[in-house]
Amino acid sequence: MSTTNDAHREAMQQAQTEHREKMAQKTRADRGLVLIHTGDGKGKSSSAFGVVARALGWGQKVGIVQFIKGKWKTGEREFFARFPEIDWHTMGDGFTWDTQDKEQDTQAAMEAFAQACAMMSSGEYDLIVLDEINIALRYDYLDAAAVRDGLEGRAKQTSVILTGRDAKPSLMEYADLVTEMVEVKHPFQAGIKAQRGIDY
Amino acid sequence: MSTTNDAHREAMQQAQTEHREKMAQKTRADRGLVLIHTGDGKGKSSSAFGVVARALGWGQKVGIVQFIKGKWKTGEREFFARFPEIDWHTMGDGFTWDTQDKEQDTQAAMEAFAQACAMMSSGEYDLIVLDEINIALRYDYLDAAAVRDGLEGRAKQTSVILTGRDAKPSLMEYADLVTEMVEVKHPFQAGIKAQRGIDY
Repeated sequence: MSTTNDAHREAMQQAQTEHREKMAQKTRADRGLVLIHTGDGKGKSSSAFGVVARALGWGQKVGIVQFIKGKWKTGEREFFARFPEIDWHTMGDGFTWDTQDKEQDTQAAMEAFAQACAMMSSGEYDLIVLDEINIALRYDYLDAAAVRDGLEGRAKQTSVILTGRDAKPSLMEYADLVTEMVEVKHPFQAGIKAQRGIDY
Repeated sequence: MSTTNDAHREAMQQAQTEHREKMAQKTRADRGLVLIHTGDGKGKSSSAFGVVARALGWGQKVGIVQFIKGKWKTGEREFFARFPEIDWHTMGDGFTWDTQDKEQDTQAAMEAFAQACAMMSSGEYDLIVLDEINIALRYDYLDAAAVRDGLEGRAKQTSVILTGRDAKPSLMEYADLVTEMVEVKHPFQAGIKAQRGIDY
């Protein structure tokens, strides 16, 4: 038992040393990061909201612009609406297959993005979440080059998270961090309905 | 322009119809779900904390057991500690390569898991997060069969999220939902240090 423990200690010391060496080579980012959460799996928006919670824990100021107003986002909105450290903007009229009007959706998306750009360049925010903006890009409500310009124009200290499936390659190239959420197994596959508190 | 808009409307109506037909075939889960967030990418714990925020938004009761106490988790803990609807338990003495004592880590993990089992079976919680439990399993501090039994013994209404890379296959088989967070691009690759509010 103590041999096992010695071997374990040695392996852990090795891991610790490697970790410290790796960290010592890093430099601080000289500006806020751009993160993209994409993929077909769950957790793209949820993890952005988890980062929001983390930022609030550090007393940071947060902005959220929702490019799709789905009823399944109610739980988060109810919760985070309690916090004065968050500015929350939800665009127009809900999800595309409810409005079924491309011109109206494009107008709403462009207004929401103008709001996002003003927030990103203001210097007032540590973190801004552009929730489901990738969907607005996918439907061509927004132009990827314009979004890239908006990100590039962000204030030095502002990090931005873009969520939604089918992220544009040019934006993934621009981003500092891209995570793909992959659906390995989903209860919908087993015919189970979305659940309050878990899915929305 | 109006032709484009008509075509868009038709496509959206089609999508809406398909979505509604798909949803009509679903049934409500007769018990809380088991979710696993695994993979090498970011967002495993963050998205669990996003779901916690969502659950709190619905007035649900939440339990969190942290199997690894890393200093990078400070933001979330600071934030969620404000909420009386959350019971928060952090196991023993921090990350394995800091303690470097397998027996001590195993003891701490088993105590944390006993706490988790008591919470899961109590019927007092809508959602319980077993944060980084997959790491405790990976280092054999816990036995996968015992964890499966603990999950199976959960109260009917309690959903459980297990996080951490290298999730055990037997637990993924048991889970209702498994999401793999895949690292497509990471700022560490570009030599950038972890940032407060984003990474911890």
